[in-house]
Amino acid sequence: MAKVLIIYAHQEPRSLNGSLKNLAVEELSKQGCNVTMSDLYAMQFEPKATRNDIIGSLHNSEHFDYGVESWEAYKRRCLASDLIEEQRKVQEAELVIFQFPLYWFSMPAIMKGWMDRVLVQGFAHNFPQCYDDGLLKNKLALLSFTTGGDEEMFSKGGVSGDIRYLLWPMQHGIMHFCGFKVLAPQICFAPEYVSEEKRKEMLTSWAQRLKTIWEEKPINCTPEWYFK
Amino acid sequence: MAKVLIIYAHQEPRSLNGSLKNLAVEELSKQGCNVTMSDLYAMQFEPKATRNDIIGSLHNSEHFDYGVESWEAYKRRCLASDLIEEQRKVQEAELVIFQFPLYWFSMPAIMKGWMDRVLVQGFAHNFPQCYDDGLLKNKLALLSFTTGGDEEMFSKGGVSGDIRYLLWPMQHGIMHFCGFKVLAPQICFAPEYVSEEKRKEMLTSWAQRLKTIWEEKPINCTPEWYFK
Repeated sequence: MAKVLIIYAHQEPRSLNGSLKNLAVEELSKQGCNVTMSDLYAMQFEPKATRNDIIGSLHNSEHFDYGVESWEAYKRRCLASDLIEEQRKVQEAELVIFQFPLYWFSMPAIMKGWMDRVLVQGFAHNFPQCYDDGLLKNKLALLSFTTGGDEEMFSKGGVSGDIRYLLWPMQHGIMHFCGFKVLAPQICFAPEYVSEEKRKEMLTSWAQRLKTIWEEKPINCTPEWYFK
Repeated sequence: MAKVLIIYAHQEPRSLNGSLKNLAVEELSKQGCNVTMSDLYAMQFEPKATRNDIIGSLHNSEHFDYGVESWEAYKRRCLASDLIEEQRKVQEAELVIFQFPLYWFSMPAIMKGWMDRVLVQGFAHNFPQCYDDGLLKNKLALLSFTTGGDEEMFSKGGVSGDIRYLLWPMQHGIMHFCGFKVLAPQICFAPEYVSEEKRKEMLTSWAQRLKTIWEEKPINCTPEWYFK
């Protein structure tokens, strides 16, 4: 029984993102998977990386360095409880799905804060244990998102450039860095500007894909995949 | 007397980021510039894009769409006061400098939240007024940041790839999209792993650059700059 974690960032349950998230829960549960959820807005998840993330005294109170302090706190088991809980969910999952609307060629700040605060050194990576040796290796990650711009804007000759260009920091810089194998992204282009029928197709094709998700091979997460 | 806005995101005043920020204030003030600051952590800036950003009733309370609601609220002058204040600062500035430590191939969540919440439709762009026609055209933007990895890791053949790959979403997807002309980034590689002398050089070269910053030509913000 595979464990799946969905990190979900949308304010509106009736949004397409909400439907995509519900569909994933439904389809994966039907398969017998154990699905866990972090509904970031509903949880009022804190995105800011601050001193509050360390319980008790600091490693160096003269000069606050978030990277050092969170690493030390991880080792001493002094991280804030919301982070420990998120790390526990990640640790148990075989597949982590990130469901969000693209904000400014990236994830919304609330989800970026999840990355900044949860994937601390010692837990997700520990130099030189990064990329193929990242501490979360043997797990799969998948970005599922909606865009404002349409597919033409996000094409090689389009004003916003190939959509793969903007995937690099998220898929390589975060997921691959932590050791995740990256599955191909699930992208719904400009759902606000297409017909109701087209939006239904977006849902159907996601449900369809999830039926055979465990047979998929990860992408080859190198510059060639992104920039050639 | 040129107006400059510095958006600063570091928790520790004694950090290199803090020193780079102080240096910019000092040098630009010496030149006679009018320098304004948004010290995001000190302001406890809210990164989450939520319903709280709209004062009073919603345009569509049945289905919350942040993009639509913030656009409508901008037009009706019903945005939260912290956003109006940030927009005023941007409006007055000729140059906006973003000073931050690179977190996960991007900016810290608190600064991403500034982008998500401040650069709303109607204020920063208004399709098709984007990119060269973005509403903030005639302004300059400059990213100044520190990294964890060293220059070799962030080179073309390095494990983290050319540093320019990760600049695309920030410089093209945000700055250029809003019309900003983008000045070359100021990058301090791995300050935590170099000598005190090298760190001093990083400060000196930033101060030196600022002396002639107004003579600089923007980069040519096209895929060629990033991926060739």
